[in-house]
Amino acid sequence: MSAESVTACVLLIGNELLSGRTQDANLAHLATTLNEVGVSVREARVIPDVPEVIVSTLNEVRQRFDYVFTTGGIGPTHDDITAECVAQAFAVPLIMNEEIAETIRGYAKVRGMSEAVLAASLRMARVPEGACLLPTDVGAPGFAMGNVHVMAGIPAVMQSMISKLAPTLAGARPVRSRSVGAYLGESTIADALTALQNAFTDVDLGSYPFSEDGRYGTTLVARGTDEARLEAVAAALRTLIIDHGAEPLERS
Amino acid sequence: MSAESVTACVLLIGNELLSGRTQDANLAHLATTLNEVGVSVREARVIPDVPEVIVSTLNEVRQRFDYVFTTGGIGPTHDDITAECVAQAFAVPLIMNEEIAETIRGYAKVRGMSEAVLAASLRMARVPEGACLLPTDVGAPGFAMGNVHVMAGIPAVMQSMISKLAPTLAGARPVRSRSVGAYLGESTIADALTALQNAFTDVDLGSYPFSEDGRYGTTLVARGTDEARLEAVAAALRTLIIDHGAEPLERS
Repeated sequence: MSAESVTACVLLIGNELLSGRTQDANLAHLATTLNEVGVSVREARVIPDVPEVIVSTLNEVRQRFDYVFTTGGIGPTHDDITAECVAQAFAVPLIMNEEIAETIRGYAKVRGMSEAVLAASLRMARVPEGACLLPTDVGAPGFAMGNVHVMAGIPAVMQSMISKLAPTLAGARPVRSRSVGAYLGESTIADALTALQNAFTDVDLGSYPFSEDGRYGTTLVARGTDEARLEAVAAALRTLIIDHGAEPLERS
Repeated sequence: MSAESVTACVLLIGNELLSGRTQDANLAHLATTLNEVGVSVREARVIPDVPEVIVSTLNEVRQRFDYVFTTGGIGPTHDDITAECVAQAFAVPLIMNEEIAETIRGYAKVRGMSEAVLAASLRMARVPEGACLLPTDVGAPGFAMGNVHVMAGIPAVMQSMISKLAPTLAGARPVRSRSVGAYLGESTIADALTALQNAFTDVDLGSYPFSEDGRYGTTLVARGTDEARLEAVAAALRTLIIDHGAEPLERS
């Protein structure tokens, strides 16, 4: 991998992801969107709604990666503790953000919310002192504190946030890929693939078995930042497949 | 959470999960299956096919959790490096397991594999010295080394492995849950829910917004090991919903 790469860690926060109740739908979308702007997700962690775990994980990964993106835990209920954990990790107070609070008060008026419900909703206006807001077209805003970007867990809200946030990030060259499939077992091409990987050290070659219509095959994926090199590898992969008696299948 | 709980960390290994190319389909299944035998998944990490990262992560989490389960990276190609990383983490040599090797040689004979392809396939017979095999009905076996259980990334193979492995694990009391839904916003019930959580400290209460047929609502989930306490919380949740002017919706 390139030395000029910009790295990210994604933290998926929520007990429901660790109990099996909810299937995460955010990581793949985040990884794809961030890659488009040259930010490479190098690790993701799924962690529970436990303050000590969230705080210590935040403090570990915000040192190790250029960017951190969190999803989950920014609603109004007692198990929504991401904002206070970020404040604790950065050792700053949690304050009421007047911009978010005004939006929530506006909603409250329109909907005729009681004082108690409004007070609960205003939990979502609390951000660490010094944070910047992350706008969204859906729901309440997220926020950025240092290199930590705090987003909603609900996919539609998270997607709105990252679509606005991604173009503002300082990325490196995006990683592109070429995929070629073949009805060949992984073992059949393993040696040739190792040789190819050794010849193209600036490209990551991956091999992924698949089963379609009862036939087994392998998808070969080349990833790298240089289009010309990727084209060269893709051509070499097609030749490799033909040399092993199969037909290259184009993959998106 | 109970002091007698048995904890696990899941490591999902593979660049394809971090590039957004592949959506993980293993964590939720593993979490559910392990919970059934009283093993509680407390953290999951998605890490790339990078030896130093795999080794250091393994050495960190195998100390911190009772069990570690890995998926991915045990095929025959150059990017399948989980077995050698486990060996390195435990500082033991990687050896050829004769039981797996015999099975692979059997396949090779039936399929008329060339010597080169057989040699590549035999990469899948390499396990750390001292490992036990994890049987499977599909594909090559995984292995256990200390408290680390190494499984395939392909969901059908992983599922076969964990279905045989789970009943052999020493678990605590399984965590059970009760869910009740309502067409109520999270803010509306936030205070009452906090009070309920404070009254039932041995139960974890979670609140998850949903949108169905254009209506917004919240699913309330109680998780704990004591069925009687869960029934009591579920009854209290139904009362709470009725008190807020809505109807409790039964959820599975």
